[in-house]
Amino acid sequence: MSAMAGGDDDPPDEFGLIAELFAPLAAGYPGALGLTDDAAFIAAAPGFDTVATMDAMVAGVHFLPDDPPDLIARKLVRVNLSDLAAKGAVPAVVMLAAAFPCGTTRSWLRAFAHGLRRDLDHYGIALIGGDTVSTPGPLTLTLTALGQVATGRGLLRSGARPGHDIWVSGSIGDAALGLKAIRGELPGLADGHLAALADRYRLPCPRTGLGPRLIGLALSGMDISDGLVQDLGHICRASGVAAEVDAAVVPLSAAAAAAVKDDQSLLALVLTGGDDYELLFSAPPEAADAILILAKELGVPATRIGRVIDGGGADAVTVRGGDGQVLAIEREGWRHFRGPDDKGAGGWSD
Amino acid sequence: MSAMAGGDDDPPDEFGLIAELFAPLAAGYPGALGLTDDAAFIAAAPGFDTVATMDAMVAGVHFLPDDPPDLIARKLVRVNLSDLAAKGAVPAVVMLAAAFPCGTTRSWLRAFAHGLRRDLDHYGIALIGGDTVSTPGPLTLTLTALGQVATGRGLLRSGARPGHDIWVSGSIGDAALGLKAIRGELPGLADGHLAALADRYRLPCPRTGLGPRLIGLALSGMDISDGLVQDLGHICRASGVAAEVDAAVVPLSAAAAAAVKDDQSLLALVLTGGDDYELLFSAPPEAADAILILAKELGVPATRIGRVIDGGGADAVTVRGGDGQVLAIEREGWRHFRGPDDKGAGGWSD
Repeated sequence: MSAMAGGDDDPPDEFGLIAELFAPLAAGYPGALGLTDDAAFIAAAPGFDTVATMDAMVAGVHFLPDDPPDLIARKLVRVNLSDLAAKGAVPAVVMLAAAFPCGTTRSWLRAFAHGLRRDLDHYGIALIGGDTVSTPGPLTLTLTALGQVATGRGLLRSGARPGHDIWVSGSIGDAALGLKAIRGELPGLADGHLAALADRYRLPCPRTGLGPRLIGLALSGMDISDGLVQDLGHICRASGVAAEVDAAVVPLSAAAAAAVKDDQSLLALVLTGGDDYELLFSAPPEAADAILILAKELGVPATRIGRVIDGGGADAVTVRGGDGQVLAIEREGWRHFRGPDDKGAGGWSD
Repeated sequence: MSAMAGGDDDPPDEFGLIAELFAPLAAGYPGALGLTDDAAFIAAAPGFDTVATMDAMVAGVHFLPDDPPDLIARKLVRVNLSDLAAKGAVPAVVMLAAAFPCGTTRSWLRAFAHGLRRDLDHYGIALIGGDTVSTPGPLTLTLTALGQVATGRGLLRSGARPGHDIWVSGSIGDAALGLKAIRGELPGLADGHLAALADRYRLPCPRTGLGPRLIGLALSGMDISDGLVQDLGHICRASGVAAEVDAAVVPLSAAAAAAVKDDQSLLALVLTGGDDYELLFSAPPEAADAILILAKELGVPATRIGRVIDGGGADAVTVRGGDGQVLAIEREGWRHFRGPDDKGAGGWSD
């Protein structure tokens, strides 16, 4: 373990790396065995289902290689917790598999572990295991997150019913606009707005408080990672329904509203751009008051953006502008694994 | 989903890939939701702990880029199931995160999925989720495996006690010699022996039958992935004990015995080479007869190779030759994440 005592630019040894940087993140969880065993043990929780999700991120694809390492770690945690929140699950533990390029320095690793610790502490969860390997390619990070939900009560994509309302948490489109801001493609926008949008791209805010509280109110749910329109299409397909969205009521942050006011064509990006990590859910109209009260209690906006209708098929999602006319949405959102323009920030099927 | 109907060399689309190749592997497990939701649901199993492990493999590091894709998939499954077996857990489900290089063809992916299916069927487990992303780097595969063990009964590394016997399953050293065989570094060996060794390197045989049956007999356990001597050192450190191994009784396959007979210096490689994926466990002497009867019943050799003694520290493991003299072991086994010679096939701490 003494290998970690070396200089900041010496390549670290796996055992030292784990002992110094990662084992402390397991300290509060006895079943993690201090990351010194072959596997971790998770105690049975009678009355609860385990909810499991797994997301991978590749440098140069899902984040920039020179992004701050603590933010990379925190984004990795957060995109996974967003999946759990969307199912109504309370997060419990994570496992991390990291393929580090050979030149990875101790100082980079320390900053990465610091970010990891910060968010694990914030969300009250432990690192219970994983793997560290070397790679001749880019940094590749995979996180598995496990949570719990009362048996049979988890929110599925398949629960949307005609006549029910479609809701989103928070504001939509900030992350997609944030990536444009980072790239300098929103030249007319005020600095404060640019910074706000960039922050939302760099660090999602999973709705871990709201998700579990939606059980009993919402009947379907997912998180928005591939874009509102495409992800609503997933709910429609899984539920065998169609949906109408009123673009005029889709909630925008002040920064996003300013960007769209400058350039109306950005509305399509807002609706399809992805990386929102907001919750998209459906609920019967009689739940609306309770949802609004809950949202107020938690300080997380919740907005009705449309309704579930009969229908289905490939064009299940209709978006209407303020005048009631159907908007032609050029691109439905991200599809993964298609070449250099890919990202694929979500797990299978989000 | 129709994207998968394209030619064998067209890049596949993530949703089509999942629908055609991976969703069928989830068909028998309702909580996988056909790989069409954000997360999977695992029903509570009162009286059982969940055992969780995660291993990553990188092309060019843990396998050769032109290895047969079905064997790559099967090795990925097996190294993870070996960890579960070492804890006495019965495997239940896996999740797969795959970062595919952009040029990955449909035919490669089909062969990979075929291998995955073959082993999932063989071990009676389901794929319940994961992630597929693209990478500009090498193929990087991460598997999370979850199993079950009766609450509090899992085999830990920390259970070894002075006076107890040290056992291994199967035969030791075949995989390390197999890599040499593949590289043409065992020129004197008969073709049959070379093939047998190479097979053991390419496809481990996790002791999923033996592991769970050792509960109640063994008091500590792990699987051998970094090499017998180094992994026994892990058990010693975790248990606060030392160990003596009689090299003369370490079980060798006919092929390994022939190789060592040709070149005695290969014995050090046998003892330290790793990738065995055999079980290493300790048990009180009074359990010996029951272990031998169990091994015979299962058709899996089990061999007492030494004993746990008082002691500890950095040199906790002593290896004695046939004459009782202490053998100097040059290298203790693989340590991960140290540059181009690394492999790191195991999870954290194996």
